[in-house]
Amino acid sequence: VGFPLAPGATIGILGGGQLGRMLALAAARLGFDVAILTPEPDDPALRVAAHRIVSPYEDHEALVKLAELSDVITYEFENVPVLAAEMLIAHGAAVAPKAEALAVAQDRLVEKSFLNAAGAATVGFHPVHDVADLKQALADLGGRVLLKTRRGGYDGKGQTWVEGIDDAEAAFARLDGRSSIAEAPADFVRELAVIAARGRDGAIACYPLTQSWHQDGILRRTVSPAPDSDGLAPRARAMAEHVLNALGYVGVLGLELFETRDGTLLANEFAPRVHNTGHWTADACAVDQFEQHIRAVAGWPLGPTEPLAPAEMINLIGADVDAWADLAADPAARVWLYGKDEARAGRKMGHVTRLSVG
Amino acid sequence: VGFPLAPGATIGILGGGQLGRMLALAAARLGFDVAILTPEPDDPALRVAAHRIVSPYEDHEALVKLAELSDVITYEFENVPVLAAEMLIAHGAAVAPKAEALAVAQDRLVEKSFLNAAGAATVGFHPVHDVADLKQALADLGGRVLLKTRRGGYDGKGQTWVEGIDDAEAAFARLDGRSSIAEAPADFVRELAVIAARGRDGAIACYPLTQSWHQDGILRRTVSPAPDSDGLAPRARAMAEHVLNALGYVGVLGLELFETRDGTLLANEFAPRVHNTGHWTADACAVDQFEQHIRAVAGWPLGPTEPLAPAEMINLIGADVDAWADLAADPAARVWLYGKDEARAGRKMGHVTRLSVG
Repeated sequence: VGFPLAPGATIGILGGGQLGRMLALAAARLGFDVAILTPEPDDPALRVAAHRIVSPYEDHEALVKLAELSDVITYEFENVPVLAAEMLIAHGAAVAPKAEALAVAQDRLVEKSFLNAAGAATVGFHPVHDVADLKQALADLGGRVLLKTRRGGYDGKGQTWVEGIDDAEAAFARLDGRSSIAEAPADFVRELAVIAARGRDGAIACYPLTQSWHQDGILRRTVSPAPDSDGLAPRARAMAEHVLNALGYVGVLGLELFETRDGTLLANEFAPRVHNTGHWTADACAVDQFEQHIRAVAGWPLGPTEPLAPAEMINLIGADVDAWADLAADPAARVWLYGKDEARAGRKMGHVTRLSVG
Repeated sequence: VGFPLAPGATIGILGGGQLGRMLALAAARLGFDVAILTPEPDDPALRVAAHRIVSPYEDHEALVKLAELSDVITYEFENVPVLAAEMLIAHGAAVAPKAEALAVAQDRLVEKSFLNAAGAATVGFHPVHDVADLKQALADLGGRVLLKTRRGGYDGKGQTWVEGIDDAEAAFARLDGRSSIAEAPADFVRELAVIAARGRDGAIACYPLTQSWHQDGILRRTVSPAPDSDGLAPRARAMAEHVLNALGYVGVLGLELFETRDGTLLANEFAPRVHNTGHWTADACAVDQFEQHIRAVAGWPLGPTEPLAPAEMINLIGADVDAWADLAADPAARVWLYGKDEARAGRKMGHVTRLSVG
């Protein structure tokens, strides 16, 4: 196929959660069809897609089917097995972003090393294969570290604080002795994020810097543009550009940042996909992160990223979604619900955006 | 079922064109599933719907299936057979708007009579069953009339100008002697439209008055709010309220109006559905006409109708859509493409909205 993809082409997506659902809605607005491959038959993106493949990610037959249906294939989930992307590429499929972006994002040690090499500073860190490594890390990084498994874990799972040498053995056991990374504490005053896109032509577009608030490791709230961020925004943008260019990236990427007490920006991690800290763009920007991602992978020019108004986004986690009727009655609230059946604790069920107009 | 419908409920839609597609996208944002019934297997709304029924509108088995899948059923197409709506109601389905709204809108004579009775003035008109009626109409209405078949016809088809008594016989033959309505010429200076919604609680919300331009009977362009319409808007709103209340309507309705040389507003016709003159709301309003319709039929409170910015909408008709790549590169253009295969002459393939920001 040739890029830009003409309307009527099919966008394949690995993963079927709310990000896939919102990508599918954006693709539909541009006249594309969508094919979703997910192992979960109840995934909400399936119900807005032209083509639905329910299968494990590494099922060869399913991947061949997806490759044959799709003119380009992308991800809505960063823990898609890299092997699945490689199998698609081997079958001749156009895959964006590259499988390498998945591989880097899936290993916290590789990711932090990559970020530093790309010119996006991070906290100090140390690989941990055994208790001796962890003790060395404590010695090198100031006596207190955050120990994280290299792979897996999300929303605060798979990590533990190590308060000193005396805790090293127990801490390593708490993570089941898995291959890990020890990180120096980030002395941050706030968390920020930047949503950036890179097109097939190498053009880059960034949305304004967003401030984020987490609770129990789960994003709860964002405010965009981040207050008092005029001085930080160009630096955040430069870090995002370094990351995108170093990866030869095509698509939207979410880069999470810390602002430290002395005003330094540190990269925490990146997600090779649309990101919860960019949901506000769907209500505040002419072209939102979902359409931007579709534009990028389809080889279209990137759209404008200037917001029409400042925006606050609140996630609806678990039982928060029970307030849907009150939210629907609030004329200032734009309500997004993800079409998930069970409002389990900690599960992202929807979000609400409020614009500051006038 | 009880209203308001909880997220996760299913909205049934009769018809599968671009209006159904945009309704389905709006429903998905609110966490609803959609079931589409259409006789056309290639219809674009099918490809974004959870449930797809391809069948004639009056197929009993298909209607039963739709009724069983859906918590409420609506239309995206005003020429759905009234019988289909009645069969659904007989099967116990909740249908909105009422079948009566379809019945009125499908017969130009009934529609004009209804509009007048509801308090929305129209041009003078006369029923025409034979040539004698047409001659009487010419005598009563000023010697020149627009003759339209009572049923069918759209985009300028099924109508003919009758220039005088001498043309009466030929004109009646041009419409194949069908039961018709003769209308006095509307001495209008411009065409306007108002998109209005009525909720299950009887609340009414109107978007700003829109000015529209047609060519060959097809809508080409709208500007919203209509220029210099501050004095007209309350009258247009009152007319829409009369129509909605007279029909006990639930959902969004498009009311087409003429502004005459002396500043009078005349109702031309109404569409018991979302309407092309309201597409701009998708880019300019927090809650657009599609979400508003879903909110209304689902028993949710209506959303705000105040635009964030003035908007111009241009339809992409037939080969106009070939400009998609240029339009995608225009940062001021919001591009909507409908997912239709063949760009046949006169076919609505997409539209573009431009906001006047700042």
